[in-house]
Amino acid sequence: MSAQHRYRIEVEFDGTPFVGWQRQDNGPSVQGAIEEAAARLTQAPGACYGAGRTDSGVHAIAMTAHLDLAKALPPDNVRDGLNAYLRPAPVSILLAQPVSPDFHARFQCHRRHYLYRLLDRRSPPVLMRDRVWHVIAPLDVDAMAKAAHPLIGQHDFTTYRSAHCQAESPLKTLSQFEVTRVGQEVHCALSAPSFLHNQVRSLVGTLVQVGLGRAALSQPYDALQACDRRACGPVAPAHGLYFVKADYPPTAI
Amino acid sequence: MSAQHRYRIEVEFDGTPFVGWQRQDNGPSVQGAIEEAAARLTQAPGACYGAGRTDSGVHAIAMTAHLDLAKALPPDNVRDGLNAYLRPAPVSILLAQPVSPDFHARFQCHRRHYLYRLLDRRSPPVLMRDRVWHVIAPLDVDAMAKAAHPLIGQHDFTTYRSAHCQAESPLKTLSQFEVTRVGQEVHCALSAPSFLHNQVRSLVGTLVQVGLGRAALSQPYDALQACDRRACGPVAPAHGLYFVKADYPPTAI
Repeated sequence: MSAQHRYRIEVEFDGTPFVGWQRQDNGPSVQGAIEEAAARLTQAPGACYGAGRTDSGVHAIAMTAHLDLAKALPPDNVRDGLNAYLRPAPVSILLAQPVSPDFHARFQCHRRHYLYRLLDRRSPPVLMRDRVWHVIAPLDVDAMAKAAHPLIGQHDFTTYRSAHCQAESPLKTLSQFEVTRVGQEVHCALSAPSFLHNQVRSLVGTLVQVGLGRAALSQPYDALQACDRRACGPVAPAHGLYFVKADYPPTAI
Repeated sequence: MSAQHRYRIEVEFDGTPFVGWQRQDNGPSVQGAIEEAAARLTQAPGACYGAGRTDSGVHAIAMTAHLDLAKALPPDNVRDGLNAYLRPAPVSILLAQPVSPDFHARFQCHRRHYLYRLLDRRSPPVLMRDRVWHVIAPLDVDAMAKAAHPLIGQHDFTTYRSAHCQAESPLKTLSQFEVTRVGQEVHCALSAPSFLHNQVRSLVGTLVQVGLGRAALSQPYDALQACDRRACGPVAPAHGLYFVKADYPPTAI
């Protein structure tokens, strides 16, 4: 087997047409699209691993991945060549840089940042269709921000975890959970070393109940303490969620 | 003929699938979509006139129009009913309010605001595909802002007018022409009582040549003074352009 050349890439994608980041049997994946473009670029298989495994419909502003290529190519050629072969799939390689074969996009990532975008107005969004969760009543952003704050820190997030979650432990440390109004939208910014499956969408969906005045300000924290999936609010839809950025220790890159 | 009831409406639309605002024989229009929704809502023809006639691919954040309905309906029912019948067309009625039969969305509008969005980076946009003009080299925003400034005011805009423009006079008064960086994008904001056909796209296309360093800072103003269409730069594509807002004198509404 020939030597592999590892590149770190950053990827923007529109998650709408994909089954998710990860290759699956039931439809097109972002990982699959990139690996196929890499194979066309180098005429040899290329393997790609992302920092996070996003669900179908979830977008990325800049997902970090590592990509092993059979040929050493100048990094700008990797970026532009992949973009040429990816077209018309809604996946764009923002950056490619050669890294050590020890770099691992998933295992070395020490913080992941997510953004959840909500549009609270009566009329449906059309310019931002499939880009924001449309909530038809006004959201109380102050209440949401206050309800979010006690969830920051290390907790057992059993309540906010999908039944399909494969993580060994429900213990996670939420480093950031901020809710702010940005123009007409409401943005939830969440960061953590790692997340449970559906954790962000479960947290945001529960918080929206507070924003709509349907749940008390204390409900999201009470639900956390219950350690019971049934205490979670409706899970927020995938299309409002964005993987924003993956952080690595300086020594990893 | 039965009495007509006039409503002022504000409309968000994604211009991608339309031949433009105005009804035409060669494909679906925003005006046509609204008139068809109105006809289904009231079981009688409805006529709609917009403040501006946008080209195919041009979007609107809030286009004002007036709509004559055969029935008097509560304004919220007009908004929600039209939105229900418009689905799945990417047109959303943001607001409906009853107005006097003297109100005319086009003739009484005394200022129109446009936004042109550019993304200057190497990699293609996918989250904002069909929403921004992708320019693959960095734009010098300061140079663009300086070059735009002398075009403000009343001028003969023959250079920046489509050959198909039907306006009687090329004299127009540009009230605002600002270029700023907004996050990763470059935004051009233009306002005027009225515009010539393709004026915004011609102005932005010419300015981008300055931003790319391909034309001198003085070129857009020199081209204006030449009063010669051949002095205009490449016309910017439709999909970066947004109709933002129409202003009316307080007495009109």
